[in-house]
Amino acid sequence: MARVRRLSQVGEFGWLKKLIPRLYWPSSLHPQLCIGPGDDAGVLRISSGRVLVATTDTLVEGIHFERKWTSPQDLGEKLLAVNLSDFAAMGHVKPLAALVTLALPGDTPVNFVNNFYQGLKSCAHRWKVGFLGGDTVGSRRDWVVSVTLLGEANPHELVRRKGAQRGDFIAVIGPLGMAAAGLEVLKKGNKQAWTAPLIEAFWRPQPQLRAGAILGQRRLASSLIDSSDGLEASLKLLADASRLGVTLELASISVNPSLKRWANGRGKNPLHYVFLGGEDYALVFTVNPRDWSAVQRLLPKARKIGRMVAPGKGISLKSYGFAHF
Amino acid sequence: MARVRRLSQVGEFGWLKKLIPRLYWPSSLHPQLCIGPGDDAGVLRISSGRVLVATTDTLVEGIHFERKWTSPQDLGEKLLAVNLSDFAAMGHVKPLAALVTLALPGDTPVNFVNNFYQGLKSCAHRWKVGFLGGDTVGSRRDWVVSVTLLGEANPHELVRRKGAQRGDFIAVIGPLGMAAAGLEVLKKGNKQAWTAPLIEAFWRPQPQLRAGAILGQRRLASSLIDSSDGLEASLKLLADASRLGVTLELASISVNPSLKRWANGRGKNPLHYVFLGGEDYALVFTVNPRDWSAVQRLLPKARKIGRMVAPGKGISLKSYGFAHF
Repeated sequence: MARVRRLSQVGEFGWLKKLIPRLYWPSSLHPQLCIGPGDDAGVLRISSGRVLVATTDTLVEGIHFERKWTSPQDLGEKLLAVNLSDFAAMGHVKPLAALVTLALPGDTPVNFVNNFYQGLKSCAHRWKVGFLGGDTVGSRRDWVVSVTLLGEANPHELVRRKGAQRGDFIAVIGPLGMAAAGLEVLKKGNKQAWTAPLIEAFWRPQPQLRAGAILGQRRLASSLIDSSDGLEASLKLLADASRLGVTLELASISVNPSLKRWANGRGKNPLHYVFLGGEDYALVFTVNPRDWSAVQRLLPKARKIGRMVAPGKGISLKSYGFAHF
Repeated sequence: MARVRRLSQVGEFGWLKKLIPRLYWPSSLHPQLCIGPGDDAGVLRISSGRVLVATTDTLVEGIHFERKWTSPQDLGEKLLAVNLSDFAAMGHVKPLAALVTLALPGDTPVNFVNNFYQGLKSCAHRWKVGFLGGDTVGSRRDWVVSVTLLGEANPHELVRRKGAQRGDFIAVIGPLGMAAAGLEVLKKGNKQAWTAPLIEAFWRPQPQLRAGAILGQRRLASSLIDSSDGLEASLKLLADASRLGVTLELASISVNPSLKRWANGRGKNPLHYVFLGGEDYALVFTVNPRDWSAVQRLLPKARKIGRMVAPGKGISLKSYGFAHF
């Protein structure tokens, strides 16, 4: 009897993420499709000069969070923030409205749900996002919370994952590696004053919408992504999308002191968290060297960490020893 | 110690569904919000003369389906169909694109996922819906599948839940009660030739998009909803939205022969399934009597089942004995 292939054997959902771009797109809608699956958000032409941008993200109990160390308010805030980060990763997108889906077991305390919505609302208020609707359904055991976020943009102010040129600088804005360390802190129940910034980075990622807007409006980035799956994954996606290679100046990657202390205490290199940790929601982007001074002026927190080079010419990340610790 | 109130004690998610309409809508977006939470779909003004319509529906293993009697292809087809039914319930809406979210345990067979997408695609092909993106995440045990559907409309061709006038006819188009019986058949594993139409009604609900489009384009319906939670719930929502009451001509409600046979075999009145069963996705709408001949001509399958009356004047559904069998 043939063995049944299971999802866990085909690269932890990598295969599935590849499947979606192959999905159906009817020819009658071709004039309206600007960007389909496979970027940070989908883009649809709705009126002349403006496009609709849509993205969706889901957090699952037991996978992304555990109830015992989760405040429902934090969960609501984070769920909307990670969707907003997808918009930041598309350039200049104005968020409009969210649809919220909750799957909850019947024994969920009512207060838990109230607090979840308080968290959502507080993030929505900050970024002027409205609620357009949603669905609320039962579940047997786990919380599953999901947001679909809609926004609008001028298509010329969007920045794709592809578009980098050989010689472009690689830059980042936002913290790296801290959220992954924060998740470890939460799992170990090790809350102390010095670990607070790590927990904060995990629960309150700051969507880099203003940075994305500047990069898109001024056309300063040639390609752009967020670092939701760790820096290594983001660099690989950017490099593959533009069929280029990457060289890095490791010394230029700044490591937060709490992250350094946490990594040292666990006998790990802090760059392990930077490259392989996830859920940071920093922006990773490429810049033509002639635009770098403008980036530095407008986004003083942006850090240059490397360069795009010919494919195969760069030193691969693997040879740095960060692919398989 | 105060007792913790849990969701299961506050009316099976009814409370939650009421919570969502109270959510935040920023004043900066007021000019763009046409219809917020609380109707069959949300509506956002994107360009002059056209609006964006959005809806989302989720199916959860153990709640909406059991893996042992579910073909993943049926599941994919149904998930998109129930979202399309929300559009039908808004009048004339052109579906554009879907975002698909899957939460799946790692031991899910790869073929299961392939077949799920085949089902989605087959429904998408029929209704010319494109895929704009989505998210794929892990789960500990249960499948959770979710679609957010986007479409566009002329705002004058939308029909709300509210808008019925006293004296309007109440009409339905589409099967009633069959899906709820089909679910019982599936749970009991009682597949026979005569129960096949019931199973078909459960797994392959036909979104009444063409009927909705006619009702919206010709402005023939004064209010409109789908019957996803059973006829009683739909009538109650329509009556409450227009602050009216309802009288019904029970004899005019046609009962499918397979439904009658299934109900008889279980010692139940078939109207039990019609009023309290769910997942039918028929349309329930109100019509000014002067427009009824046009409805009959354009939608020959529409059946008149009652009338909107002054609030408190109609015989309540409860007094028919169908609220609590």
